[in-house]
Amino acid sequence: MVRRIVVAFLSLGCAFAAPVLADEDLLARSRQLFSPIPSTPPELPGNSASPAKVELGKTLYFDPRLSASHAISCSSCHNLGLGGADAQPTSIGHHWQRGGRNAPTVLNSVFNLAQFWDGRAKDLEEQAGGPVVNPIEMASQETDAVDLLKAIPGYHEAFAKAFPGEAPPITLANAQKAIAVFEATLITPNAPFDRFLKGDAKALSPVEKQGLALFLDKGCADCHNGINIGGGMYARFGQALKPGVEFLPPDDKGRAKVTKADEDEYVYKVPTLRNIALTAPYFHTGKEWDLRKAVALMGATQLGEQLSKEDVDKLTAFLGSLTGDQPKVTFPTLPPNGAATPQPAP
Amino acid sequence: MVRRIVVAFLSLGCAFAAPVLADEDLLARSRQLFSPIPSTPPELPGNSASPAKVELGKTLYFDPRLSASHAISCSSCHNLGLGGADAQPTSIGHHWQRGGRNAPTVLNSVFNLAQFWDGRAKDLEEQAGGPVVNPIEMASQETDAVDLLKAIPGYHEAFAKAFPGEAPPITLANAQKAIAVFEATLITPNAPFDRFLKGDAKALSPVEKQGLALFLDKGCADCHNGINIGGGMYARFGQALKPGVEFLPPDDKGRAKVTKADEDEYVYKVPTLRNIALTAPYFHTGKEWDLRKAVALMGATQLGEQLSKEDVDKLTAFLGSLTGDQPKVTFPTLPPNGAATPQPAP
Repeated sequence: MVRRIVVAFLSLGCAFAAPVLADEDLLARSRQLFSPIPSTPPELPGNSASPAKVELGKTLYFDPRLSASHAISCSSCHNLGLGGADAQPTSIGHHWQRGGRNAPTVLNSVFNLAQFWDGRAKDLEEQAGGPVVNPIEMASQETDAVDLLKAIPGYHEAFAKAFPGEAPPITLANAQKAIAVFEATLITPNAPFDRFLKGDAKALSPVEKQGLALFLDKGCADCHNGINIGGGMYARFGQALKPGVEFLPPDDKGRAKVTKADEDEYVYKVPTLRNIALTAPYFHTGKEWDLRKAVALMGATQLGEQLSKEDVDKLTAFLGSLTGDQPKVTFPTLPPNGAATPQPAP
Repeated sequence: MVRRIVVAFLSLGCAFAAPVLADEDLLARSRQLFSPIPSTPPELPGNSASPAKVELGKTLYFDPRLSASHAISCSSCHNLGLGGADAQPTSIGHHWQRGGRNAPTVLNSVFNLAQFWDGRAKDLEEQAGGPVVNPIEMASQETDAVDLLKAIPGYHEAFAKAFPGEAPPITLANAQKAIAVFEATLITPNAPFDRFLKGDAKALSPVEKQGLALFLDKGCADCHNGINIGGGMYARFGQALKPGVEFLPPDDKGRAKVTKADEDEYVYKVPTLRNIALTAPYFHTGKEWDLRKAVALMGATQLGEQLSKEDVDKLTAFLGSLTGDQPKVTFPTLPPNGAATPQPAP
């Protein structure tokens, strides 16, 4: 802290000397922990992208007919207009049932080490199959979903183009692959913090830089790091102080359900903080709507520290610098029903 | 019929003479009844469009927070990927309640003489206010909807830009105006039939032309005419033969509820046939999924005629030529919730 004050003092005397040393220090520390979102989507292992596959994936992402009711699509809960989430504590699914956990953002999810709050899907491809057949989400049966796609005439050509040479091209596995390559395009480069990481010292305001310094000094970045500033590891919610039951209901044991290991009780994937200002409410219960309060809760439960109002404000300002360019997606025209397309469940 | 056969015969002898006389006749008759969709949106009386107003309208159209649950938007039931409708018999609304009638397409709805199946809203602006406060649709209260918009920080600038000089700019009336100017952009020019109307004789296939001739000769165009090939008048469903209760349930008296006139019992706005191949299921109950069967039913109930399979096929082929270029809409980024934004109803 002393060093940084001295640097700031010195910098007054040489206003035209760039870069300022304090920023250099902050930048060097940041670059050790974070990296910017690239401007082009990453390739998925074993699932190469093509324009036809991305277009098919987009179409499927927006197609509510993948649900039993024909009314719920991926886009319903991962709304590209709402930061890739749905501004609900937990999502509304089939027959207005509520999902068990807050819908995580689809944006930049390609960079997470695994998918879902508990990491139970290893990648986007595996994840995409989950909600379709989850009885409280889209509530389809696997065979019904495939039969439905086959009974929509326009999907035959779309799948054949996306998966040339495969017979039959229409499979649930291929649908998941196509959705995954589309979702891999849903990245948000060019956040102010990314521009800072690339060397633009002016991309962050003074208060955002103070927030970043706190983020590093306090230990937030011990979990929230990497390209997604989160999404790269698991951590126990409440490792310093157990949160209230509204945030940590005892019956949801987190990753322990996946690993069957006692030490994973109440362990969750560390969520990305990218675009966090767009994706209230927060935590896996979605019970906190105020980002400042969410920051304060994290200070208490994860760091064991009662953060001052000033520090919360600075940290929140820094989090605001994590909002990147939102994807520009043209709403797809879905292939229409044929006379033989199965009808929605009542 | 004799004349047309003769003309077709003559045309064989002069393959390079264009236009073919039979088409000229069909074109002349068609131009008396129909007009093509323009390439640019019409102006709305008293509600001039501006880029800011259209953009705001688009944002509101896709914003589910206008509903009590924050989960249902205009786009939920008027899905631009599904021909501006929702491929449901009747839409799923608040708490999974079902709407009373099949969701009509939003596409080209600006050209209808009035809105809703019973014409109870005189224009798009008036219509846009309906579903927001309908308890089985979006289920908001008027004051709640306005309070919500005011509590989303980004809407202040968006409304101020769309309605410069107005204080306060955020009103439900202005939201409806903005949605209406956006919806006026949702037009589908360049259908094969429109190209035919503009003089391209090859825009329709032979069977489509035969279907068009039947459409005129049989009397379909007595009701389905004008720019929207429907949408311009009211007619009794079952004027020749009363349809079954699945298509005409006795408790829905149609326009009579609006006009309180006995002669309007079971009278409905004639729906547009534009993009009809994209918008199954059909009729105000949404109980018919097969366009061919819908055509046959219309023949029986409206024309008192049992159409032959061949005629149904030709008419259906013609209806397929009414699919225009679907709107290319970039999914909007919605202004995020603030900490004080009201939360969704449970």
